[in-house]
Amino acid sequence: MAGISNNDIKKVKALQQKKFRDESGLFIVEGEKMVQEAIASPFDVETVYHKSDIGEEAMKRISALANPSPALAVVRKPSYTYLHKDEISATVRNRGLYLALDSIRDPGNLGTILRIADWFGVDAVFATNDTVDLFNPKVVQATMGAIFRIKMHYTDLPAAAEAVLGKGGKVYGTFLDGQDMYKKELETGKESPVMIVIGNESEGISKAMEAVVSDRLYIPPHPKDSPGSESLNAAIATAITVAEFRRRF
Amino acid sequence: MAGISNNDIKKVKALQQKKFRDESGLFIVEGEKMVQEAIASPFDVETVYHKSDIGEEAMKRISALANPSPALAVVRKPSYTYLHKDEISATVRNRGLYLALDSIRDPGNLGTILRIADWFGVDAVFATNDTVDLFNPKVVQATMGAIFRIKMHYTDLPAAAEAVLGKGGKVYGTFLDGQDMYKKELETGKESPVMIVIGNESEGISKAMEAVVSDRLYIPPHPKDSPGSESLNAAIATAITVAEFRRRF
Repeated sequence: MAGISNNDIKKVKALQQKKFRDESGLFIVEGEKMVQEAIASPFDVETVYHKSDIGEEAMKRISALANPSPALAVVRKPSYTYLHKDEISATVRNRGLYLALDSIRDPGNLGTILRIADWFGVDAVFATNDTVDLFNPKVVQATMGAIFRIKMHYTDLPAAAEAVLGKGGKVYGTFLDGQDMYKKELETGKESPVMIVIGNESEGISKAMEAVVSDRLYIPPHPKDSPGSESLNAAIATAITVAEFRRRF
Repeated sequence: MAGISNNDIKKVKALQQKKFRDESGLFIVEGEKMVQEAIASPFDVETVYHKSDIGEEAMKRISALANPSPALAVVRKPSYTYLHKDEISATVRNRGLYLALDSIRDPGNLGTILRIADWFGVDAVFATNDTVDLFNPKVVQATMGAIFRIKMHYTDLPAAAEAVLGKGGKVYGTFLDGQDMYKKELETGKESPVMIVIGNESEGISKAMEAVVSDRLYIPPHPKDSPGSESLNAAIATAITVAEFRRRF
């Protein structure tokens, strides 16, 4: 396509705000590599804008980046994004490793968690409705393309955990009073479904989710009685835990 | 102390810039918890400013944060920060686990890596001179206090690796053509020193550091032939690798 109207510039720019993404069901993807991945993915790409077509000035106006890249795509959110309670059960398979994001608020953390899920072949990511929006431009960029490969579902998170338990699976969470992860037998999702709950950056795992955790884990520091840092970042704890489940698979 | 002069406000504010931190040897620490940790640490705290003494307006002016906290301290950089080549050998102990940061550029990544080092009792962190400044306010905050417990040395990084090798130790790095980390025998630093090299966010490990890596590792994705994400974030790879070395210690 050649050129872009002022009206279209306004519409694309509006997608930087959640309100307009929710209204339109659209979001933006930036960067030549990311745009190529969007096109190759099952996602519906509505429009692709390229600097060589619309000019640098227009590109700057529609971009959410400090340094706009040469390509930007407007993409439709996948239908599985918001899952009704009744749809959860069909989404949880007997063999499967799932993450449950319990109010992750930092865009960088969410993007990084999706990348971890992608690397370690997590089957799907469930999240509370107050988890940061996956379609926030900062999150989209931080996923480095994982957004196109890992299914993420905003839903009733305790109900998702109940679905895993209902299929004979386990729901794991890390707690300061949990058991040393390396000394504990773990279900790895070979037979029953497994869910790992990731708590909020400052509050940790909520009471509602703690109530449905079947096994409490702890990532041991070194030395074990170390008085060093009090906690690990949410994405870091996710990485170490998921890596250990996959190592034992 | 009560009150703060306009001249002092200027001086404190200037510490948000590397140039002035380098000139003065000072940096700023914000947040009541962080300031308390600074005071309890071996670091020299030059001045503490509290909102109740200097007022909210002055606090806003000296703070690097969007939402200033009630406390800010001006702290002296420790003497071990910049290590001359000749000082490296005395810093590498026979038993010890070290990280080598090969041009880490993102402040959040550096802060997170320090937190990981703190949790897992890493003995010291070496870094290239072009690694992001540890005393950048964003990095200081992201360390969540680990800056006061983990010694970080900017130095000639290949020389630091040579020092580890010279003491009969191993230098590990992760590469796409490395060996599955979980299937390889690892020196864990119980006897000889061990160094783990963390590559730059986009370029990976430099040629100069690759030349001194003794063992090439790989964090296996799942499934092993997974076509998913191409890489893990630098801090995430650090976490998974360090956790594995500590698990086997």
